[in-house]
Amino acid sequence: MSQYEAYYPLWEKLNIDAAKLEGALGAAQKRHADLFLTQADRPKAMGYFDDLWGNLQTGRIAELDKLKSEGKPLVGTFCIFVPEESVTAAGGACYGLCSGSPASIPEAEKELPRNICPLIKSAHGFKLLRVCGYTQSSDFIYGETTCEAKKKTWEILAKHHPVHVMHIPQKKDEKSMRLWREEVEEFQEHIEEVVGRKLSFEEHKKGVEIINAKRKALRRLDALRGMHGDIMPISGLDSLLVMQLSFIDEPVRFTEALNTLCDELEERINAQKSVFEKGTTRLMILGTPFAAPNWKLHKIVESSGGAIVNEESCIGHRYFKDDVNLEGVTTNEELTARMMERYKNIDCACFTPNEARIEKIVKMHKERQTDGVIYYTLSFCHTYNVESHLVAEAMKKEGIPFLAIESDYSPEDAGQIKTRVEAFIESIRLKRGA
Amino acid sequence: MSQYEAYYPLWEKLNIDAAKLEGALGAAQKRHADLFLTQADRPKAMGYFDDLWGNLQTGRIAELDKLKSEGKPLVGTFCIFVPEESVTAAGGACYGLCSGSPASIPEAEKELPRNICPLIKSAHGFKLLRVCGYTQSSDFIYGETTCEAKKKTWEILAKHHPVHVMHIPQKKDEKSMRLWREEVEEFQEHIEEVVGRKLSFEEHKKGVEIINAKRKALRRLDALRGMHGDIMPISGLDSLLVMQLSFIDEPVRFTEALNTLCDELEERINAQKSVFEKGTTRLMILGTPFAAPNWKLHKIVESSGGAIVNEESCIGHRYFKDDVNLEGVTTNEELTARMMERYKNIDCACFTPNEARIEKIVKMHKERQTDGVIYYTLSFCHTYNVESHLVAEAMKKEGIPFLAIESDYSPEDAGQIKTRVEAFIESIRLKRGA
Repeated sequence: MSQYEAYYPLWEKLNIDAAKLEGALGAAQKRHADLFLTQADRPKAMGYFDDLWGNLQTGRIAELDKLKSEGKPLVGTFCIFVPEESVTAAGGACYGLCSGSPASIPEAEKELPRNICPLIKSAHGFKLLRVCGYTQSSDFIYGETTCEAKKKTWEILAKHHPVHVMHIPQKKDEKSMRLWREEVEEFQEHIEEVVGRKLSFEEHKKGVEIINAKRKALRRLDALRGMHGDIMPISGLDSLLVMQLSFIDEPVRFTEALNTLCDELEERINAQKSVFEKGTTRLMILGTPFAAPNWKLHKIVESSGGAIVNEESCIGHRYFKDDVNLEGVTTNEELTARMMERYKNIDCACFTPNEARIEKIVKMHKERQTDGVIYYTLSFCHTYNVESHLVAEAMKKEGIPFLAIESDYSPEDAGQIKTRVEAFIESIRLKRGA
Repeated sequence: MSQYEAYYPLWEKLNIDAAKLEGALGAAQKRHADLFLTQADRPKAMGYFDDLWGNLQTGRIAELDKLKSEGKPLVGTFCIFVPEESVTAAGGACYGLCSGSPASIPEAEKELPRNICPLIKSAHGFKLLRVCGYTQSSDFIYGETTCEAKKKTWEILAKHHPVHVMHIPQKKDEKSMRLWREEVEEFQEHIEEVVGRKLSFEEHKKGVEIINAKRKALRRLDALRGMHGDIMPISGLDSLLVMQLSFIDEPVRFTEALNTLCDELEERINAQKSVFEKGTTRLMILGTPFAAPNWKLHKIVESSGGAIVNEESCIGHRYFKDDVNLEGVTTNEELTARMMERYKNIDCACFTPNEARIEKIVKMHKERQTDGVIYYTLSFCHTYNVESHLVAEAMKKEGIPFLAIESDYSPEDAGQIKTRVEAFIESIRLKRGA
């Protein structure tokens, strides 16, 4: 008897290929156990997140199903520009869709070019294979125009699932921000259509408060893991899992669990307890997001004498660095204006120019006193890839050691990446010793 | 003594690397002679275009220099969305920049990723090497946001040359068109700043009339070469050269020379004179542009039993298919509105959705009764590459033979492409014979 048998009726209702999903889950759980549970001295409070990973396609999907039965919107996304605050305001769920596995890519390549970003191909393959409960549960997928491979893939994905596309501008001047605000307002109206009524200011404000609190807790984790010098109370790998799950879990419960973890990390810092040896090379990752279960680079770095103390990435710092400022806000119009202020500060490489990102990276390095940065580009992501030249120039000027890695989800280049990471860490150590 | 000695002072003034340019020109002229002058039965009127190719970096650059000395704007571009009508209205020159050669790519790869479009890398390399008179002459380069690799490259190119960026939206709804119109108006104001005065309606109208006439002549060539069944009075290769030079030459003179060529082609059609044997497989090329001297695919097809009767491409049909409708227009505001109507009809894959393109392709096929289509994607061009799946589906539905080719500027894949093109043509013949 399958351990998932209780979920078969739900999976069937969602038109999930249950046999395939069950096979995939076995592999995903084993990989999680191999990579995460084998780490020494893990914080006890990681148990919540391990369990959440275990319930990813079962318990959490049942929760979403319950929301749906109550008429709440379920919105799947691939980008931090889709206003989760508004979905939360409506009592619904806004979540990141499955997109981090190499296993679904061959299926996607029946409809998509091979030489586009693995995240997009993986997500498209999950839909074609019907093995992601999040995709299957979504009332609609909210795509956007932040990258051209995504933008064009929505046209094909729309043949398989309802897709809406938010037009994110490519500049941030006044007229672009005006267009963008109109897009956000249309999104809000769309959510109101799903729930069948206008949302009050109090509801909107509550939605923002919930997500602000989540971001605040993520910033707390960020400071605890990477701003106490040699004392690093949690691995980069564990921190990454927490951030990945921040796009999946119910936000209030998640925030509480994360604050519990942070309390434990504070105790560890007070007790000078680090999960890394003194002198471990402290690195920051810059660039494109790591969708679960894309743990390749973290595993490589942290088994090569390095520790990852921050991801300057959309699954990471770029997501939680800014809040919506609620001070003095009394109307929905003002609230939307404040949301736009926050969006304007997101320094995605899709914008031209994007100089603020470089200033921010230098500042982040100084705050964390990192030993170097690894610029990570998902293969064929032109925006972050071209921008890496400007970042590399700036790092050189600041004297910050810099390594660029471009990779897809295949395990095939792991050996080559490990060699490069080891040499990078060795060069930093030699320099430090000199 | 160098044959280019007379131009050395001009080249020096433009900060051109004269020795490098002279070497490059030798190769470019030889390649032109080998590919073009060896064709049998060429129209006599091609002489004008052969001469223009010969004067590309000499006589034409001297003409631009004269314009500049008269205070006229010189604007280099990479996209048909930059309003050449407005530059023409100001008496200036708007031209496509050198971007079709593999020779400049290694230099560009010092600053750009290897896995982006060869056109962008080639253009960037021409600037770094200082071997393109057009780039060097430009008051400014007007980039745009139609593709992300270009969009981000402008940030790096701007370190070497003045660059402005026009924000082209990614959708065509009302609010996107409003943003776009404001961008076009800003461009027009910028041109007026360069010439130091407002341009009158009559000047603007004249600019549009000149470019409309050029487009009309290009449509005439298009109909003559490909809409008379087995009678094809000019090769696809020669037609391509004409279209490539349409972005370089003085437009009034060019239009006259092209109409002279078309007169000759009409005579040939009346005399039932074709440059291809009866039964030659008639093909249309869809997709990304061929910047001179990128003649690889045309050479391969036309030496493999095929004839190219149309390029559904920005250097080609997408550029000249629509005019600005001047009927009843009496003010600059109305004129700009009409320009926007024309832009809205351009079916670049940068837009989502872009369904009109597929309907158009089917219509183009029917008008020309082609035997099949080759979908050409410049390597790593995500927008056209992803969209190719939708086009392939539509072609299958219509029963139109379809071949997809993705290639860069390197000569290395020529053999492999030839094998695929030959097999494609053979399969069409077998089907036709059956």
